Amino acid sequence: MTTRVLGIDPGLLHTGWAVVESAGQTRKYIASGVILPNPKMEMSQRLVMIFRELRKICETFQPDECSIEIIFVNKNPKTTLLLGQARASAIVAVAQSDIPVFEYEPNVIKKALTGAGHADKSAVDKMVKMLLPMARPKTADEADAIAIALAHTNTIRF
Amino acid sequence: MTTRVLGIDPGLLHTGWAVVESAGQTRKYIASGVILPNPKMEMSQRLVMIFRELRKICETFQPDECSIEIIFVNKNPKTTLLLGQARASAIVAVAQSDIPVFEYEPNVIKKALTGAGHADKSAVDKMVKMLLPMARPKTADEADAIAIALAHTNTIRF
Repeated sequence: MTTRVLGIDPGLLHTGWAVVESAGQTRKYIASGVILPNPKMEMSQRLVMIFRELRKICETFQPDECSIEIIFVNKNPKTTLLLGQARASAIVAVAQSDIPVFEYEPNVIKKALTGAGHADKSAVDKMVKMLLPMARPKTADEADAIAIALAHTNTIRF
Repeated sequence: MTTRVLGIDPGLLHTGWAVVESAGQTRKYIASGVILPNPKMEMSQRLVMIFRELRKICETFQPDECSIEIIFVNKNPKTTLLLGQARASAIVAVAQSDIPVFEYEPNVIKKALTGAGHADKSAVDKMVKMLLPMARPKTADEADAIAIALAHTNTIRF
């Protein structure tokens, strides 16, 4: 059975997204990108842009499941608030089409990819490159979204 | 000119909403209520419920503008995150139908209603009752949503 997973790395400035297909042991890179709301736009318009772009991505790529990182409260409470808002826009865009949303803690994502919950970024990047040589993320947010999607395909396997 | 304003007091447990009509000096109560996502539901489902209910409210009452309180970072960062997520679901539900969303600081809302930015809750409630005797809010969240809608009608007047 083939499962299409949409991974999202939400943020009010950059929301990374990636679509990965999983069938048994096989992983296939489908597409990825970054949504970049103009920082000059009003907050409500930036949230709507994240929502609309992810709606389009869901319509185009028809994912079966969605994977997103759990946000922990940041040292900077303002950052926590902004991240929470970006994340909710993303969740609502996906979940209102009845696509199940799975939420993962950062160390669960690392563990699902590398076997170690405290793996560093380069170990994660290496695994992503090995599993999906066709993926050529141009930004860190895109790379993170690919890792989030891949981690979910590794988690549902077991 | 008659303007229909949707006021929203967002929250993950209770999201108050109210529709108020404004024409010159006249204010008219149209409807209000509270959205109560089941706390046992998953976070994504609670966010989607707020989104869907507010979409229905927009379709039913066709507001011209929306008014919502600005959230400040709370002492409890977890509360800030949850409030931010509920608020984003509400904003996206309204703004994606191209209804302009106006965001107000709590003291601006109080000032627009009572003339004093540091008015206490009972002074705000009194003004709401005076301006909208037909409104009979059953909960604090509903009352707050009415106040938020009314404050906007008083602000656009000037």
